[in-house]
Amino acid sequence: MLFMVRIDVQLDPAMSASERTALLEAEQRRGRELKDQGIIVDMWRIPGRIANVGLWAAPSATALHEALSSLPVFAYTTIDVLPLAAHHLTTDPRQVS
Amino acid sequence: MLFMVRIDVQLDPAMSASERTALLEAEQRRGRELKDQGIIVDMWRIPGRIANVGLWAAPSATALHEALSSLPVFAYTTIDVLPLAAHHLTTDPRQVS
Amino acid sequence: MLFMVRIDVQLDPAMSASERTALLEAEQRRGRELKDQGIIVDMWRIPGRIANVGLWAAPSATALHEALSSLPVFAYTTIDVLPLAAHHLTTDPRQVS
Amino acid sequence: MLFMVRIDVQLDPAMSASERTALLEAEQRRGRELKDQGIIVDMWRIPGRIANVGLWAAPSATALHEALSSLPVFAYTTIDVLPLAAHHLTTDPRQVS
Amino acid sequence: MLFMVRIDVQLDPAMSASERTALLEAEQRRGRELKDQGIIVDMWRIPGRIANVGLWAAPSATALHEALSSLPVFAYTTIDVLPLAAHHLTTDPRQVS
Amino acid sequence: MLFMVRIDVQLDPAMSASERTALLEAEQRRGRELKDQGIIVDMWRIPGRIANVGLWAAPSATALHEALSSLPVFAYTTIDVLPLAAHHLTTDPRQVS
Amino acid sequence: MLFMVRIDVQLDPAMSASERTALLEAEQRRGRELKDQGIIVDMWRIPGRIANVGLWAAPSATALHEALSSLPVFAYTTIDVLPLAAHHLTTDPRQVS
Amino acid sequence: MLFMVRIDVQLDPAMSASERTALLEAEQRRGRELKDQGIIVDMWRIPGRIANVGLWAAPSATALHEALSSLPVFAYTTIDVLPLAAHHLTTDPRQVS
Amino acid sequence: MLFMVRIDVQLDPAMSASERTALLEAEQRRGRELKDQGIIVDMWRIPGRIANVGLWAAPSATALHEALSSLPVFAYTTIDVLPLAAHHLTTDPRQVS
Amino acid sequence: MLFMVRIDVQLDPAMSASERTALLEAEQRRGRELKDQGIIVDMWRIPGRIANVGLWAAPSATALHEALSSLPVFAYTTIDVLPLAAHHLTTDPRQVS
Repeated sequence: MLFMVRIDVQLDPAMSASERTALLEAEQRRGRELKDQGIIVDMWRIPGRIANVGLWAAPSATALHEALSSLPVFAYTTIDVLPLAAHHLTTDPRQVS
Repeated sequence: MLFMVRIDVQLDPAMSASERTALLEAEQRRGRELKDQGIIVDMWRIPGRIANVGLWAAPSATALHEALSSLPVFAYTTIDVLPLAAHHLTTDPRQVS
Repeated sequence: MLFMVRIDVQLDPAMSASERTALLEAEQRRGRELKDQGIIVDMWRIPGRIANVGLWAAPSATALHEALSSLPVFAYTTIDVLPLAAHHLTTDPRQVS
Repeated sequence: MLFMVRIDVQLDPAMSASERTALLEAEQRRGRELKDQGIIVDMWRIPGRIANVGLWAAPSATALHEALSSLPVFAYTTIDVLPLAAHHLTTDPRQVS
Repeated sequence: MLFMVRIDVQLDPAMSASERTALLEAEQRRGRELKDQGIIVDMWRIPGRIANVGLWAAPSATALHEALSSLPVFAYTTIDVLPLAAHHLTTDPRQVS
Repeated sequence: MLFMVRIDVQLDPAMSASERTALLEAEQRRGRELKDQGIIVDMWRIPGRIANVGLWAAPSATALHEALSSLPVFAYTTIDVLPLAAHHLTTDPRQVS
Repeated sequence: MLFMVRIDVQLDPAMSASERTALLEAEQRRGRELKDQGIIVDMWRIPGRIANVGLWAAPSATALHEALSSLPVFAYTTIDVLPLAAHHLTTDPRQVS
Repeated sequence: MLFMVRIDVQLDPAMSASERTALLEAEQRRGRELKDQGIIVDMWRIPGRIANVGLWAAPSATALHEALSSLPVFAYTTIDVLPLAAHHLTTDPRQVS
Repeated sequence: MLFMVRIDVQLDPAMSASERTALLEAEQRRGRELKDQGIIVDMWRIPGRIANVGLWAAPSATALHEALSSLPVFAYTTIDVLPLAAHHLTTDPRQVS
Repeated sequence: MLFMVRIDVQLDPAMSASERTALLEAEQRRGRELKDQGIIVDMWRIPGRIANVGLWAAPSATALHEALSSLPVFAYTTIDVLPLAAHHLTTDPRQVS
């Protein structure tokens, strides 16, 4: 299945610079792993926000939740998940069957 | 996969009584079929509303949309879909894997 | 009576790891007790959130509130309660009568 | 059980004056019956709206829905139901047990 | 006049247990006084929330505000006030005249 | 008592020009009467909307509702009522006592 | 020009009692000055809230912002501004011309 | 004064093509007049909507309302008005003084 | 540039079956053309809704609006547009540069 | 391309006066640079808020995000971006082509 996922991040402004850097580096590494595994299919940034919208592939909502909750920033996020169905213009209908 | 689905129905008050009766009878028959096929797992009415919340089982969002759009009242509905993931208290985790 | 209950949890990110672990372990034990007593009928996780939606059985809103406020994470929750009525597709109408 | 119920009515402005009068008279009679039966415990009008908020007593959400859907204006309403639990200042705790 | 008042309480989770206990005891005493004076007419708890909905009697919004702001938890509340008007099913129309 | 009242008007665009003119003339006359009686204390238009915000004086919510529902456009309105309490800068505290 | 201004105040519950007292005294003095200058025309308290709604007169939004941001509690407020236009029932149309 | 104005248009889909054409031509002419008079300073379309956001200059909210309600499509609009104040980066501060 | 576009369609239930069929066929043809031109990059259906979410490529918001308003169902839609920026996981950053 | 951007700032009230002053001075300098580069085209303050609405020019959402995230107060903001399309009254259509 394919899911449209929006992730808004709200870091604590009081977090120290070094903690913040370490957290964001860990986040980048984990994001890259999920991309390499094909779980994150594509992702874009929302201008003006520490937020992104992405296409995620997972066999079930349970598997999707495991991927999302493995993100190092998970404790600081608000995440909205939209399951996607096939449209006659869908490029690769197998993704959503 | 299992989905929590809320369906709110807004019939046109100007619809004739016979049209309305025919529509609701067709709706009852189609609902019974989806229940017998195991697509509708359970369903409850929301008090004070022409609305229900139900558990629907389908292999994908595409299959779920086919089931939902087969409802005779589909043109009069507002439908919200929530994909469900396993919790340690889920009775039958196979439903959401 | 049967209630559809959504529980969103918002832990303080500043909580120590040991406090957090102790709290979540106590939460799991209490959840299991309520499941064993038949008060929690079923429960699923909402993907991407520290949140769940569940079916709770209680003879009254007073009894439901006692069960909900017995959860160790209660002080960190936002809870929405929807009382459920019988639908012609309800599997076990006695739950909602 | 006791429920706090808000009922907003939206009649079609194009309804004829005689239909409207007949509907509102039927509504008054049915409201009186529900009050006499103790299902409507008390009711107040919301100033500036064709709307009311009331206390309704019913053994279950199923019974409450039957009472609400018996209102002649039901097809024109938006209804919100809040189940009530006992508070240490509740005058008659038996209503909510 | 009669007012429908909803009070949501949001205590700081970091408040010490003894402060919290003292605050809630003071709240219970003040609530009892307002009930004995007939200012609080009735009150119910909202299940799953540290919140209540109640009927309050006061000669004016000024007097109502004085009663509400005398609550020990006032600094931690979000309060919504709805003035009530007579309905043909109101039990005691003098309350709202 | 004094109330802040916002009135939004939504006329049916299909209403005939003569009906519309008659309705709005009746509205102006009734508004003038309520102003002369001191029930409408003051009123302003909200720019870009067929809407106004006004100060209304009435001894109770019941009396206020009678005044509001006497407006010829009442069937086409959405009305929000805010009861007002005394502030240390209130020009005439007797209005809200 | 005349503006309808709603000011909601959210003080930090952790503020010390002396800081709080000093802040509120400064606020009262500044409010009095703005009233004496005719910038605040009238003001009422919203029952159950640390909030007020008022009529403010200023030649422009720039001048209004200067007055609002001169309030000692400004850093703790959420402020909504509604510019007002003349209605045929406006008592003093010069205020809004 | 300068106002940021958002105008959303909701034409009736049942309007005849000729009525629609006449209405939109009248709208274009009136828009051009307001631009030539300097009341509309600038205007942009919101992509995907029959809606625009514009900068309007008027000496008061009363004058702004007269301009807005002179639009031929006024009966079909939802309009939001935001009065603008000077910022240190405002190109022409005289517009907002 | 790349835009995330959500299109909700609300057809009039009173539209004749033949008009509806003709409209939807025209919509499918136009959608196919926009896909073939690379303006619609990908598109999915939202389960339970007559709605879709898609990725659209256009050199500007003006060009995007031209494409969206060329849809035969445009008069029946509510459309939300989100411009997308590059993220370190974006597959093809040239799309958003 | 041209974007309408609203920026709401929520500084921590506990920030020290010197930190605050340094932050706001840095913000003013960066705002001036963006204005001089033609990225900020114009900007106005929203009365009663620490917020502004402005016109920003950037070749893409990626470039816009770089400009917005270069603001010293970025970590304390909520930013909404609206891409703008040409209207027949747009003064300089090249900005939005």
